[in-house]
Amino acid sequence: MKTKSNIVKPCTPSGFPEYLPEDQIAFNRYLDIIRSTYEKYGFAPLDTPNAELKEVLLAKTAGETEKQVYSLINGTAEESQISDKLCLRFDLTVPLARYAAQHYNDLIFPFRRYHIGKVHRGERNQAGRFREFYQCDIDVLGSSNPIIDAEFPTIINDIFTQFDFGPFIIRINDRRILNGFFTFIGLSDKKEATMRLVDKIEKIPLRQFKQSLEALGLSDQQISHIVNLTNITGTNDEILDRLANLGIDDPDFTAGLTNLRAVISAVRIFKVPEKNFIIDLKIARGLDYYTGTVYETTLVKHPELGSVCGGGRFDNLAGHYTKVNIPGVGISIGLSRLFYKLRELGIIESNQKSPAKVIVLPMGESEFDFTAGVAADLRATGVPTLFYTETQKFSKKMSYANKMGFPFCVIIGPEEATAGKVTVKNMQTGKSTTVTPNQALDIISKE
Amino acid sequence: MKTKSNIVKPCTPSGFPEYLPEDQIAFNRYLDIIRSTYEKYGFAPLDTPNAELKEVLLAKTAGETEKQVYSLINGTAEESQISDKLCLRFDLTVPLARYAAQHYNDLIFPFRRYHIGKVHRGERNQAGRFREFYQCDIDVLGSSNPIIDAEFPTIINDIFTQFDFGPFIIRINDRRILNGFFTFIGLSDKKEATMRLVDKIEKIPLRQFKQSLEALGLSDQQISHIVNLTNITGTNDEILDRLANLGIDDPDFTAGLTNLRAVISAVRIFKVPEKNFIIDLKIARGLDYYTGTVYETTLVKHPELGSVCGGGRFDNLAGHYTKVNIPGVGISIGLSRLFYKLRELGIIESNQKSPAKVIVLPMGESEFDFTAGVAADLRATGVPTLFYTETQKFSKKMSYANKMGFPFCVIIGPEEATAGKVTVKNMQTGKSTTVTPNQALDIISKE
Repeated sequence: MKTKSNIVKPCTPSGFPEYLPEDQIAFNRYLDIIRSTYEKYGFAPLDTPNAELKEVLLAKTAGETEKQVYSLINGTAEESQISDKLCLRFDLTVPLARYAAQHYNDLIFPFRRYHIGKVHRGERNQAGRFREFYQCDIDVLGSSNPIIDAEFPTIINDIFTQFDFGPFIIRINDRRILNGFFTFIGLSDKKEATMRLVDKIEKIPLRQFKQSLEALGLSDQQISHIVNLTNITGTNDEILDRLANLGIDDPDFTAGLTNLRAVISAVRIFKVPEKNFIIDLKIARGLDYYTGTVYETTLVKHPELGSVCGGGRFDNLAGHYTKVNIPGVGISIGLSRLFYKLRELGIIESNQKSPAKVIVLPMGESEFDFTAGVAADLRATGVPTLFYTETQKFSKKMSYANKMGFPFCVIIGPEEATAGKVTVKNMQTGKSTTVTPNQALDIISKE
Repeated sequence: MKTKSNIVKPCTPSGFPEYLPEDQIAFNRYLDIIRSTYEKYGFAPLDTPNAELKEVLLAKTAGETEKQVYSLINGTAEESQISDKLCLRFDLTVPLARYAAQHYNDLIFPFRRYHIGKVHRGERNQAGRFREFYQCDIDVLGSSNPIIDAEFPTIINDIFTQFDFGPFIIRINDRRILNGFFTFIGLSDKKEATMRLVDKIEKIPLRQFKQSLEALGLSDQQISHIVNLTNITGTNDEILDRLANLGIDDPDFTAGLTNLRAVISAVRIFKVPEKNFIIDLKIARGLDYYTGTVYETTLVKHPELGSVCGGGRFDNLAGHYTKVNIPGVGISIGLSRLFYKLRELGIIESNQKSPAKVIVLPMGESEFDFTAGVAADLRATGVPTLFYTETQKFSKKMSYANKMGFPFCVIIGPEEATAGKVTVKNMQTGKSTTVTPNQALDIISKE
């Protein structure tokens, strides 16, 4: 006998999202777009362990990151010494660096990989902050060719066009332009701090931005130069010309501008519509490992979401694990957050509770045999099909079909079975027709 | 400057597998077969968190399991109190039970879900023992209909036929037949212990099996009855008849036999070839939560692998989380272990290091524009295509194409670009032809 006290309240830890089937189906639709598009461009799948050795994961320690890392322990005495050295990964970039160094001799470069997986961070508990979330990364290692830098906006353009979340814009910059500019205006020793402030320029009022630069010790003139640089707008060609006409004599600036010009030119060769990408000098990226091209993507109608897809180029990805210099460039889509926000905004709708396009409903057991054959034929032509098995009144069966949101219902009663026919009901229009199974296949696959 | 002492040796924790791209591509091929087949039968995707609250996960504690569970801790002071109550899931069944209880009012029953995800166990460190591995589960909750029990062998038959690992057999039993039989021969108080021994019958010599039953206190006659029962062979119909003719007057036995007959009949309606499923009275399943139909699947030519896919029916899945009685039935494919073993045996081959079917090689930069158009057209027709970007000698480019294992290579030099043509090379046959881009599409999509 079970008493109430035996029952543990079923709930999930906060910050660890899970969805009802209708939302999970919607989430997976976007995940599938990402996966299939990454593969369409020839990126190979990788799947590294959720856990890494602590000393490997934290080879480059950063105070805040380390605090957020989850360590693993378990109760097996034999194991405790091993397992307390295990940590859950907090991103997919550190594991990529480790992987590239570890398997260097078995990989062929340029090495293109994508990785879609969960990462874990012990974030503070806030709405919309996840402790477990998906990252969807692509990177190319072992090439410094700007044509490769141009592939990422191409792929992002392809994916966001399929997503159909409305207009989006991929903003492109080259950090060397900013770094060279900072050197040129006499900020050699403050470049990193200035870069981090430029990264915040859109998140804070201009006055506060200027005050922060002032606090860093910049002169009014230096501040004004930076504000003017980040304010350069126009078409991509106009921006490139304006940058060239600034007369900045600095090797970093020149290298960055030359590279950016090559990237923009290749993005055009790859036929990305001009309205979907723009050079933007305000894009700096917070992380200090970027050394060249940087990207951020924003949804034009939802600037409040900030960057929904960002990345960039790094000169020496795996420096903590190998003496071999491996340049890389990559981009990451934070699908968990994007999905969560767009679902809250009502932009992502979900109503189908099953991946099946059709439910086949035998009226009684004597129709099972014929119905099973129809279901098998539908599946053989690639139509996901649910065979309804329960003994219920017809109205209950139809109510189930309605609530689940199947686009089509195939009903088979004694008359249909005798005549070798089926009744197909389009659940959207409510229209029913009694046809042969082959005709039903046609009707359903046309959708 | 980097010194050697800064470099951390890149390696993964033992028991946490990862693969090179060619093996990962092969692994994902099987994962995709499982996923698409589960969806083809109308199972909805679920994706629960990797971590559960400790009291939820261990609501039903089992000593050994608890020792293997990984707990999570992190360094954020605010979080430590929360996070030390988190554990990584060790299977996908406990999370399903928790999910069904938690979301009971939002789910529509019968509820069909599949779940493909990683689980973690702090296993002892042995070859082929994974601490992180995939489980690929399907379950139906909220129906006791034997037609549903019959869907699982149907789905497994579909998947293993696509796997193409050689002949396989799905072995089916009903635990009530064994339980009723044990009661009938006077083992009421030893049923569970006897069941666990029957589960081991194929893993130990017959003599040892008999000795174990003897040690449990069974008489020679009782032992002989059990050996005779588990030795019943024949066609499915012969076995059903033999069981009926045993003259066992026990309600469990009768219920089990009636159900098994209905399951076998429905498996036939679903057109599973008779050679691929067999009633086997030796199938007991070790876990004590099964209460009806049980399944195991073996590869006929690789009995040493044991069961590669098992499951069964349970009367009350979520009893630790809700007073509502939720019956369920399900099956799980242990793909990580199966893949690892078959790869070791040389049955799974992998040679493609990219998911792309074609590499397009522009001879020089002046062909980039035309080549990019060809690549875009190939992708638009669904052909994954890699655009080669590096400036290299032609022989180096071809060597890259060869090593990567692309089925096709599309080469575009100045002559091709001028004529609006491309050279397609079939990398298997070595045959090259210079054709229009549309003809190239035809040649490549035909494969």
